[in-house]
Amino acid sequence: MELKELVRNIPDFPIPGVLFRDVTTLMKDPAGFSELIDSVVRSLEGKQVDIVVGPEARGFVMGAALAYAMKAGFVLARKPGKLPCDTISYEYALEYGTDSLEIHKDAIKPGMKVVIVDDLLATGGTALACAKLVEQAGGEVVALRFAIELSSEFDGRAPLKGYDVDAVISY
Amino acid sequence: MELKELVRNIPDFPIPGVLFRDVTTLMKDPAGFSELIDSVVRSLEGKQVDIVVGPEARGFVMGAALAYAMKAGFVLARKPGKLPCDTISYEYALEYGTDSLEIHKDAIKPGMKVVIVDDLLATGGTALACAKLVEQAGGEVVALRFAIELSSEFDGRAPLKGYDVDAVISY
Repeated sequence: MELKELVRNIPDFPIPGVLFRDVTTLMKDPAGFSELIDSVVRSLEGKQVDIVVGPEARGFVMGAALAYAMKAGFVLARKPGKLPCDTISYEYALEYGTDSLEIHKDAIKPGMKVVIVDDLLATGGTALACAKLVEQAGGEVVALRFAIELSSEFDGRAPLKGYDVDAVISY
Repeated sequence: MELKELVRNIPDFPIPGVLFRDVTTLMKDPAGFSELIDSVVRSLEGKQVDIVVGPEARGFVMGAALAYAMKAGFVLARKPGKLPCDTISYEYALEYGTDSLEIHKDAIKPGMKVVIVDDLLATGGTALACAKLVEQAGGEVVALRFAIELSSEFDGRAPLKGYDVDAVISY
């Protein structure tokens, strides 16, 4: 199955000149969504995975499905103020300004093996923030996985150097 | 396994007097998260399910995992302005003011069998909005499933009368 054919291309979204890769058309396709997750599972063969972390909000989709597929737990990395208990947070730079992500302080125990998952790898900023949070909690980032990598527009792997990084679909 | 024991109770969140049921501690538990999803799968035995719909953002977690488990597609019901293509939207009342949810216009084809999933059933407003969106698109809501139902505080099943509604954990 050619998963790339299930991704919808939307010109000029969110701003003129940008070709947006819409992964929702892949997620709504039963065989496509299965194959997307199974393909990530195969790429993690031989690794122990205790926890999958996904950033709000689209990272929840692939992340939770992968956690279920691997019989791992799922940890939500959320925007500030959304988690109800004590959190640790990591601030990261955007093109203009900053953003930050949080996880519950007790979500990851020291030594746990963690995979970070998101739908899109662009600049790598969000994924790096997740990795820093996992390490702040004492976890070990064993891999980062993405549905789509925009490798011709961004060097998203540069900030993730030293980690095991892979994407199912590359542009 | 007693899934209720994996839910964390947080007094006075988000406001004084409210006992918040934190489902993230259940989701991060590998065996608990598996059993949560498998329990929903069992409750849907004998039903055809083409699509699972989950509302932003915590509905993405259970919804996507359930979609994978049932080899169905996953459709994101999002806050306004988040989806990149043509949408249909449904506005619903909150305690103060209104909110609305959107799905892509082409996300659900007429006749498709759809399950709506969220972590929490409180007033039922969000779930009903999802059901209305599915029906507007021509889909058939075969069931609504929740991790937690706050049945002593709210009558969340009232607005969902006529639908097949179930929750894994009830308070």
